[in-house]
Amino acid sequence: MTCFASFDALRAACLDLPEGHSRVAEDIAAREVTLTKPPGSLGRLEEAVAWLGTWQGRNPPTLERVEILIFAGNHGVTAQGVSAFPPDVTAQMVANFANGGAAINQLARLAGAELRVVALSLETPTADFTTSPAMTEAEFLEAVAAGYEDVSPEADLIVLGEMGIGNTSAAAALSGALFGGGARFVGTGTGVDDQGLARKRAAIETALARHEDVLGDPLRVAAALGGRELAAILGACLAARHRHIPALIDGIVSSAAVAPLKALRADALDHALVGHMSAEAGHRLLLEELGMKPLLHLDMRLGEGSGAAVAVLLLRAALACHTGMATFEEASVSGKPA
Amino acid sequence: MTCFASFDALRAACLDLPEGHSRVAEDIAAREVTLTKPPGSLGRLEEAVAWLGTWQGRNPPTLERVEILIFAGNHGVTAQGVSAFPPDVTAQMVANFANGGAAINQLARLAGAELRVVALSLETPTADFTTSPAMTEAEFLEAVAAGYEDVSPEADLIVLGEMGIGNTSAAAALSGALFGGGARFVGTGTGVDDQGLARKRAAIETALARHEDVLGDPLRVAAALGGRELAAILGACLAARHRHIPALIDGIVSSAAVAPLKALRADALDHALVGHMSAEAGHRLLLEELGMKPLLHLDMRLGEGSGAAVAVLLLRAALACHTGMATFEEASVSGKPA
Repeated sequence: MTCFASFDALRAACLDLPEGHSRVAEDIAAREVTLTKPPGSLGRLEEAVAWLGTWQGRNPPTLERVEILIFAGNHGVTAQGVSAFPPDVTAQMVANFANGGAAINQLARLAGAELRVVALSLETPTADFTTSPAMTEAEFLEAVAAGYEDVSPEADLIVLGEMGIGNTSAAAALSGALFGGGARFVGTGTGVDDQGLARKRAAIETALARHEDVLGDPLRVAAALGGRELAAILGACLAARHRHIPALIDGIVSSAAVAPLKALRADALDHALVGHMSAEAGHRLLLEELGMKPLLHLDMRLGEGSGAAVAVLLLRAALACHTGMATFEEASVSGKPA
Repeated sequence: MTCFASFDALRAACLDLPEGHSRVAEDIAAREVTLTKPPGSLGRLEEAVAWLGTWQGRNPPTLERVEILIFAGNHGVTAQGVSAFPPDVTAQMVANFANGGAAINQLARLAGAELRVVALSLETPTADFTTSPAMTEAEFLEAVAAGYEDVSPEADLIVLGEMGIGNTSAAAALSGALFGGGARFVGTGTGVDDQGLARKRAAIETALARHEDVLGDPLRVAAALGGRELAAILGACLAARHRHIPALIDGIVSSAAVAPLKALRADALDHALVGHMSAEAGHRLLLEELGMKPLLHLDMRLGEGSGAAVAVLLLRAALACHTGMATFEEASVSGKPA
């Protein structure tokens, strides 16, 4: 059982990261140029294969076991009227996941992925971060450890998603705390109206002022302004790195959840790709701060790992080309003259 | 057997187009708002389902029979040194398609699509359009009819791709002829060097000047500056419209091939979506002229229908959500308060 005893212990784990296998990336690149296509003409699909191989440490990479992990949490900040849907919807959607009725169920099946949903103390929302830290150190570390534990060591790829009414407020607050600029990462979430958006912005500004003393410490920021599902995503992303598993990040909430890792160590997210750029306004700004370029832009804004699950299809396309194509020699196709 | 007896007969067919079923789009939209997600939160996936239904005329739409049609042709303009690969590669790649070794073979299998490759008189390249029209009226109409015939009336979706060394020169010339601006649609194609790019630009400028007399007639432009595979794509796209089949367009060559339809009638491509924005420089400019927004941007530049084939995966994701998700009522999930 993984246990992080303190912020300090977790920080140490976040700083102790394995590198990718650059030798594997070279092997993959060497094969790519032999395949019957102009060099580089599969664009980001070729990059994706190299990325999978770099972090799995094998050529060809495999996508036999793809796990989608959805973490769910509830948020005290909903008391500020920041969301279009009532907090009960978090648990209702967890039940919907279990019954196979949500978007992510359909997308996981299509992507050939195993879906696991982890509800984190839904009956005990985090504290309202406009008045106190969302989580104590112990609560935060417990959620991080839960996420860390939920990553199967045998997974070829993990997809990190979430469900939690109020969590785009947490994501915007966390992002503002890490990267500055106040409430600039705020958006309409599940579809809050103009008055709700004003309340959301005000709540984030209040929270950033209240927790000013922790802004220099990314993990304390995650505890004070995040949520249990965000903490679990951080833990799962860290576990993936330690276990040499590439990770696909979903929308603004997943991206904000892993941002503290990047703040602690610049290369901490090199094993992660962002599947989809959300229509939620702040995501583009956040990805600029993280220096990450999403695979898809489909104007989705659902969460649940849905955008990243669609991106799994692209990774399968990339791998199918890399492993299935004939070489110029095998196919007797003339190469580009030197 | 379809036969277009003259430019005039084909033009008449291009102007006589059925409308989409807007009633079906309304039915689809009515179901979408009942599904367990914030309204509109699947973004372009929701739009894609509405588009499929509008043109198939049924709700839910189906993707049982997806056909990828790859048309191949050879180009006299290769004599001008405009390509990085020798013309023999067109036939060699057709053989590679038949043997299952190309990128499109892997992508078609993953997308659950049937792949058909149609080689169009490869032993007889079109004339060099810098000195004479690429095709006579009869040659052009024959290729259009071949494409028209190759669309199965039973298809749920067709994907239009191509193979033809030299055909990005034809696409750039055709686009410049229709939309002005000379050689601005030119790019490096399969990877021509700077000198080759200069030759390609010069060939296009020469061709646009030589065929100035036909610039006002989109079909004569397609005959003078296009190629057999482009003509066949035009025919197939037209057949799809007449048969109520939605069409996915691939990169710059496919887009240029269908552009004359749009020039003849502003709504002629409403049944078509562009699967992927090519890394080939001119494609973005061409799509701006066509007013079409691609589903994917993956820096691919391979042709073969490869980008559009990847986009089929997105359509499957869209349809899986639309048909498989539970409604708020079925799942007992609270809707957004009014």
